[in-house]
Amino acid sequence: MIIPRLDRIAYGGDYNPEQWPPEVWPEDVRLMREAGVNLVTVGVFSWAQLEPAEGEYRFDWLDRVLDLLHGGGIAVDLATPTAAPPAWLTHRYPASRLVGRAGQVFGTGARQSFCPSSPDYRAAAARITEQLATRYAGHPALVLWHAHNEYGCHNPSCYCETSAAAFRTWLRRRYGELAALNAAWSTTFWGQRYGDWAEIEPARLTPTAGNPAQQLDFLRFSAEEHLANFRAERDILHRLSPGIPVTTNFMIASCKTMDYWRWADEVDVVSNDHYLRAEQADNHIELAMAADLTRAVAGGRPWLVLEHSTSAVNWQPRNIAKRPGELRRNSLAHLARGADGLLFFQWRASRFGAEKFHSAMLPHGGTETQVWRDVVALGAALDSLGPVRGTTVRADVGMVWDWESWWALELDCRPSVDLDYVERVHAYYEWLWRAHLTVEFVRPTDPPDHPLLIVPSLYLTTAETATALTRYVENGGTLVVSYFSGIVDANDAVHPGPHPGALRDLLGLTVEEFRPLRSDESVHLDNGATADTWTELITPRGATPILSYLDGPAAAAPAVTRHPVGGGVAWYVSTRLRAGDLDDVLRRACADAGLAPRDDLPADLELVRRGPFRIAINHADQDAKLPATGTELLTGSPCDGLLHIPAGEVRVIRTD
Amino acid sequence: MIIPRLDRIAYGGDYNPEQWPPEVWPEDVRLMREAGVNLVTVGVFSWAQLEPAEGEYRFDWLDRVLDLLHGGGIAVDLATPTAAPPAWLTHRYPASRLVGRAGQVFGTGARQSFCPSSPDYRAAAARITEQLATRYAGHPALVLWHAHNEYGCHNPSCYCETSAAAFRTWLRRRYGELAALNAAWSTTFWGQRYGDWAEIEPARLTPTAGNPAQQLDFLRFSAEEHLANFRAERDILHRLSPGIPVTTNFMIASCKTMDYWRWADEVDVVSNDHYLRAEQADNHIELAMAADLTRAVAGGRPWLVLEHSTSAVNWQPRNIAKRPGELRRNSLAHLARGADGLLFFQWRASRFGAEKFHSAMLPHGGTETQVWRDVVALGAALDSLGPVRGTTVRADVGMVWDWESWWALELDCRPSVDLDYVERVHAYYEWLWRAHLTVEFVRPTDPPDHPLLIVPSLYLTTAETATALTRYVENGGTLVVSYFSGIVDANDAVHPGPHPGALRDLLGLTVEEFRPLRSDESVHLDNGATADTWTELITPRGATPILSYLDGPAAAAPAVTRHPVGGGVAWYVSTRLRAGDLDDVLRRACADAGLAPRDDLPADLELVRRGPFRIAINHADQDAKLPATGTELLTGSPCDGLLHIPAGEVRVIRTD
Amino acid sequence: MIIPRLDRIAYGGDYNPEQWPPEVWPEDVRLMREAGVNLVTVGVFSWAQLEPAEGEYRFDWLDRVLDLLHGGGIAVDLATPTAAPPAWLTHRYPASRLVGRAGQVFGTGARQSFCPSSPDYRAAAARITEQLATRYAGHPALVLWHAHNEYGCHNPSCYCETSAAAFRTWLRRRYGELAALNAAWSTTFWGQRYGDWAEIEPARLTPTAGNPAQQLDFLRFSAEEHLANFRAERDILHRLSPGIPVTTNFMIASCKTMDYWRWADEVDVVSNDHYLRAEQADNHIELAMAADLTRAVAGGRPWLVLEHSTSAVNWQPRNIAKRPGELRRNSLAHLARGADGLLFFQWRASRFGAEKFHSAMLPHGGTETQVWRDVVALGAALDSLGPVRGTTVRADVGMVWDWESWWALELDCRPSVDLDYVERVHAYYEWLWRAHLTVEFVRPTDPPDHPLLIVPSLYLTTAETATALTRYVENGGTLVVSYFSGIVDANDAVHPGPHPGALRDLLGLTVEEFRPLRSDESVHLDNGATADTWTELITPRGATPILSYLDGPAAAAPAVTRHPVGGGVAWYVSTRLRAGDLDDVLRRACADAGLAPRDDLPADLELVRRGPFRIAINHADQDAKLPATGTELLTGSPCDGLLHIPAGEVRVIRTD
Repeated sequence: MIIPRLDRIAYGGDYNPEQWPPEVWPEDVRLMREAGVNLVTVGVFSWAQLEPAEGEYRFDWLDRVLDLLHGGGIAVDLATPTAAPPAWLTHRYPASRLVGRAGQVFGTGARQSFCPSSPDYRAAAARITEQLATRYAGHPALVLWHAHNEYGCHNPSCYCETSAAAFRTWLRRRYGELAALNAAWSTTFWGQRYGDWAEIEPARLTPTAGNPAQQLDFLRFSAEEHLANFRAERDILHRLSPGIPVTTNFMIASCKTMDYWRWADEVDVVSNDHYLRAEQADNHIELAMAADLTRAVAGGRPWLVLEHSTSAVNWQPRNIAKRPGELRRNSLAHLARGADGLLFFQWRASRFGAEKFHSAMLPHGGTETQVWRDVVALGAALDSLGPVRGTTVRADVGMVWDWESWWALELDCRPSVDLDYVERVHAYYEWLWRAHLTVEFVRPTDPPDHPLLIVPSLYLTTAETATALTRYVENGGTLVVSYFSGIVDANDAVHPGPHPGALRDLLGLTVEEFRPLRSDESVHLDNGATADTWTELITPRGATPILSYLDGPAAAAPAVTRHPVGGGVAWYVSTRLRAGDLDDVLRRACADAGLAPRDDLPADLELVRRGPFRIAINHADQDAKLPATGTELLTGSPCDGLLHIPAGEVRVIRTD
Repeated sequence: MIIPRLDRIAYGGDYNPEQWPPEVWPEDVRLMREAGVNLVTVGVFSWAQLEPAEGEYRFDWLDRVLDLLHGGGIAVDLATPTAAPPAWLTHRYPASRLVGRAGQVFGTGARQSFCPSSPDYRAAAARITEQLATRYAGHPALVLWHAHNEYGCHNPSCYCETSAAAFRTWLRRRYGELAALNAAWSTTFWGQRYGDWAEIEPARLTPTAGNPAQQLDFLRFSAEEHLANFRAERDILHRLSPGIPVTTNFMIASCKTMDYWRWADEVDVVSNDHYLRAEQADNHIELAMAADLTRAVAGGRPWLVLEHSTSAVNWQPRNIAKRPGELRRNSLAHLARGADGLLFFQWRASRFGAEKFHSAMLPHGGTETQVWRDVVALGAALDSLGPVRGTTVRADVGMVWDWESWWALELDCRPSVDLDYVERVHAYYEWLWRAHLTVEFVRPTDPPDHPLLIVPSLYLTTAETATALTRYVENGGTLVVSYFSGIVDANDAVHPGPHPGALRDLLGLTVEEFRPLRSDESVHLDNGATADTWTELITPRGATPILSYLDGPAAAAPAVTRHPVGGGVAWYVSTRLRAGDLDDVLRRACADAGLAPRDDLPADLELVRRGPFRIAINHADQDAKLPATGTELLTGSPCDGLLHIPAGEVRVIRTD
Repeated sequence: MIIPRLDRIAYGGDYNPEQWPPEVWPEDVRLMREAGVNLVTVGVFSWAQLEPAEGEYRFDWLDRVLDLLHGGGIAVDLATPTAAPPAWLTHRYPASRLVGRAGQVFGTGARQSFCPSSPDYRAAAARITEQLATRYAGHPALVLWHAHNEYGCHNPSCYCETSAAAFRTWLRRRYGELAALNAAWSTTFWGQRYGDWAEIEPARLTPTAGNPAQQLDFLRFSAEEHLANFRAERDILHRLSPGIPVTTNFMIASCKTMDYWRWADEVDVVSNDHYLRAEQADNHIELAMAADLTRAVAGGRPWLVLEHSTSAVNWQPRNIAKRPGELRRNSLAHLARGADGLLFFQWRASRFGAEKFHSAMLPHGGTETQVWRDVVALGAALDSLGPVRGTTVRADVGMVWDWESWWALELDCRPSVDLDYVERVHAYYEWLWRAHLTVEFVRPTDPPDHPLLIVPSLYLTTAETATALTRYVENGGTLVVSYFSGIVDANDAVHPGPHPGALRDLLGLTVEEFRPLRSDESVHLDNGATADTWTELITPRGATPILSYLDGPAAAAPAVTRHPVGGGVAWYVSTRLRAGDLDDVLRRACADAGLAPRDDLPADLELVRRGPFRIAINHADQDAKLPATGTELLTGSPCDGLLHIPAGEVRVIRTD
């Protein structure tokens, strides 16, 4: 169990009692119980309430809140409040302010406006963490620590002088000698050689494209500064509050700047915040992708949704409310993909501040609302789904995900501004989702046990990764590699020789030239598929052309190739095919891998196996049927051969 | 009479003789007389000419200009030149520079690049004002003082340290105790509690959404700093030049940052600058709206157009010239809606500087131009229209206008970026304009005597406003409230309970959830109307659904409701209907109010009653007819039953 | 010969051996020879390699490179490395940093991040130039000096205090007295009068439109600072390395900020960098335009292409690869228009840095690529084309080009944001290109000997220019002037009287009013042509209307006029006609000029006469025929009456 002291699927949300008069708190607890809430996150932005002046602490109100919750049988995920330094800290320690790429100094009134490398910030954050840990380590409501909030969400990088000095220290540690840095940063280009560590700066605003290796290292450094801040808090909590696991809420798949693979082994429990891209069609597929990625970072173990929304958020251009049933489908899709807890932001809608139009479990409209009824119903449903807790998801297909390659791919001066890492991941993921094949995301150096592995645009491919992928194929795996993969090493230097340097032997081809397309251009393949954005001029060197370009700048050249290597096969897709147009290629790759897409099921029926359970989510407006035998948990009904999933509904069947 | 010493409709423009050699000045006066000009604004940006070095004054040239004008019978609206501080001031007092939200310091070469809170600027502005007032108080040409120019146009807010200190002083005055500020700003949200006044800053650049109450207060503070600057100048002028009224030129309906309701009682004469949105179709309706709003700020008394253009301006993306007759129609539309003076920017087109492509009364092309001929003809027409001067406009319908709610509605993190305050005002206004119903704009707390009152998206609704609106309806009024009204209080805090907290009793409904639409989405109502941008899930609680959604996220729920309260009726329109699609609703509301739209007249015939006059402006390409009996002033012809208004022409009839 | 020591058409590219291990260098030389390379540019960004610490020099590696090249028979264009100051310089002399318009200080990691007026930069640049010149003046490989790289590309203007002081010094030199500056800058407008030189600043960020004369002078100053930097290096090179010509690579037609007319007499050899606008259709016409303009700046003498690309670049949004044959057609089009050397950026594709995806002569894919084969083939072709070298191009038509007018036309507050100087030049150029008429670009004050002269939108027209154009027409020339010409003088002050002040007598008309069009608006002329963006209300005052507006805001007024003056004719085109819609007007103007467009040839066949050669480039997919007799150089075949140019191919015939 990921939260040892909690014996149920966690259910609840962020609870900010400091925003409400104490009279409201007992009503909160009463309504939480009505909704089946058993875990709330408390204190996320309470620093200024807990330490109103430097070194002066006020814990009475929080004591009372925790006692009230405990009295109501509700466990607490207690947050360190370090994502919102108090005004006194910013005022007294001006060097702790966040500074932007062009030197602009950020002001007060928001959150996370601090420099992640600031010693003043760090010292103050450690003190408040120690205070909290000391006081609440023994509180019976406490089951989980929640360090900070969404590390790096608004302050991914700081460009101040403190950060510059910290960056130099980090670089000295990474490279030892300046010559090694000059080599890694390829400073022979544009005469950027450094003769002294003191000459090195953050990747500040430049009048034209800056050094990409410098940019990559500054991204690495910045991410590690946040991770160091997490580690510092975690270590305090472990020391002073042993036995209580520590988590922090990731923003997986949407936060580009944190390399969560590096956080995987640092947190006791992996947690994620997920919000729909409200205006995007079929955005539940993106949700599934994020959930699968979170599970991967959790090493396959159960994880928590620490934040998602009951309906609209407040920070997108148009904050679309959820449709009927969407709250339930979204939440249970997380559960299906490994979540053992479902928390919302937030319990009670704020009356003020920047987030007052964010939906909540208890909306402004109170209990006479569909959202409230759905929240209560979901709480009840989770009671029936208790047996699912602790089980693990069974995946079918591997897919590589890599933050560093994402960073590198989208630096400036790439062959086309239309190159988009997540878009490619999503396109392959979407096809697999519709084929009812569950994805296991993996580090590039760590191929899975599954017979099929997808590698979407892995621009940055190290030699280690190339070796791992080659071994995967040699050992019988089927690999599908998307375009613009295998191009550069960890310092954004092109691998020697023809593209794709790191993968050309494995793929059995060279790319003579990239042939990106104009913004309104599309091309056709000889199987009728339409592609856009990108094409390449491929020379097969062992690979067999499977599909070719009918037109466009690579007309008549291969578009998709297949290369048997050892016991396996390496496919290459050199152009941007949307999910539907990938069908032909991916069916053949599945055949190579011995995988069968479930063509007998409706495309909009999400189907995941978790332990002995099969969880079916019907996103369509029509009812669906699934061959199945066993007991359906939500209705409690036996199913003998054919499970009926009403339009918009969810069914969870325990296979006998 | 608003300008006691002027006995005619004021006619003229900005006159900048310092841009021309003195030989040109007598010709200017001769041509002004030819055009019927009787009032010119002089000295608007002359500070550096009048005080070329600190404390050194040169008035000789201005003496000569005023004497020349007086000799030609032309009165003077004399400006304080404080909108363009001289270069010596900026150079000697660098702390008087304007600083932007991200800390950028603005440079020289434009105008209004000063910090409105700068003590150095203020002291220097007072000195030059005193000098001018002392010297010209007794000049016989002087009939009006013109303080500054378009306060806050380019420097609405300054973010420097001086401004920060002034903001803190302002806040101390507003809140007294820090606890009151913490409460008003809801600093329990995101841990923003202030422990010391010194910690508070202007609403500077933040890494994510800043505190909305802080932003609102900073907007209020900034607007009041400008008003304080006006008051300081006005008081000097009153003291040293008694009997001469003081005005300043507003930019009503287009300047978001000045709350002109607060200026209403401070100026002796309300003046406005108005420029067409050149690329917008039917932009004369926006002109009418601005004129009605100016009249409202003037308390129904006559007012002045201090600036409008004879043809194109120079600062829009595409500066479209006026079509034949448009100059006359525009000018007389202002007159129809209460203006007692029509001044243009500017008399003679500049040969240089940023505004040289702005049209003028005397264009670069000189007197052999249609613009000049139109200017002369308008001067002559105003001679015939003398009797209209001093009369008041008779309105039919009230409409609420509120700057603070505009500010609050368009802060960040609202449910949809498509929410647009002025757009909603304009849509309702447009329907009324086409129905030949004249609008009286009112403060939200000050309902009118008219039987119908429109409240476009009044997001910020105080309890005082809610009470006033309720009393209006109880006393028999018909109220039409547009969506996203009644949501927050003066500190941007949501009123307790379901939306729309301040108005739900009056409207007889609750809004369970906002349902904003996607960018390309539209929905249909059951009367055939099409709507977009916004819908809501309404629960009637006393109100009767009149129209419902056929589709979209609120399908089948009420879209428009009607709630009889006391002697009146409160309507609610929960979606964005364009003017034409509002027809059904507004006709029914008019019926409730006992108002009859004039369906017998062409929609493009603007018709306003001012005193005993009816002013008809035919914006169509076809001639129009209006039942009327009396004397037509422009032609001098009697009219016996049917007034003929040629296409594009204006007619003014005195009803017998 | 422009490079005395080089006896062939120059062929090669930028060679950056410092990016490669020394083992690669001999292979480079071997492959250069294989490709026919005879000139490479070396050392462009090598400052930090040559002077790793202030005053410490390392020339050994460069000695070796030059010796190797010389051993291989390859001449060297040796660059001063001053476009990329080393990190030690930036670090030790922080005042040498580039500062942006809003005060932002640029960081390290790119290139040209220096203040062009910095004395520290200038001193260091002089020292390294002296060192290089001293060491390599006598090297036998050296044939050309290459000062800096693309002056002003990324740092056209700096806004720091050093620049401010330098600007003031420049202004004192230009104006002598402050009164003259106040007059030139028209500081009576918006009260901008200066009482002391110290009050004057660069054209920094302003809260509204800044003084246009200040902006123009700051542009002039900035351009001259770069030119001064060039002169300083050139003088050192001339002094220490006599006999070796000095060049620098222009970015003609795409770099707006350098007035290359002023550089014409300063460089020993005119060189240009040209890159296609990759996504633009028929971008070879823009190439031809740039080549003709380079030749004009070179005074008609041969010039060099110092950079162009074999295929895609890396800095456009979508970097489209060249199609088959395009490399050859592009290169030879430069040759046809006067180039005596064709160099590419760069020899060998970089493995790292911001430009690694820029194509090269030797791609990442090595010699087994079409690009390499094309490069080798071009080298061979140039062998056959040796006789073309040194000959001069014969033009048919003159066209005015003026950087200052370009600057002025596109400052803010013009009548329409759609006004675009280069677009108008290109439209006229395109028609002439398709008519097989070769253009000679001229300074506005320097009309050509050709019978036809086109003046695209020459907004800034001095009296001197007006006189020159008038004399041109009086002496029999046919002039075609596009709209918005003749409006202002060198200080952006409107010429007195009706527009177009400087040209109304010559054109025989006045423009009563500009009538720009809405963004989606178009109008029609009575010859069926369609126009957009711009119209004018013209009053002929001697000119004869030739075409009129059928609709739009100038309906029924003249659109195109013709005015015989002395022995010639002045045409005026008052609206934006695309190349195709200009056909009618330009045919009539050609008839006036006695010029005959070659209607017998396909429009896509580029045809240029250079010395006794006719160079035909077939851009079409169909073969073309050209009546010709003589010897074809590329094939070596005689041609007797009809030259066959295969689709996509080039032919060069020496007329017997």
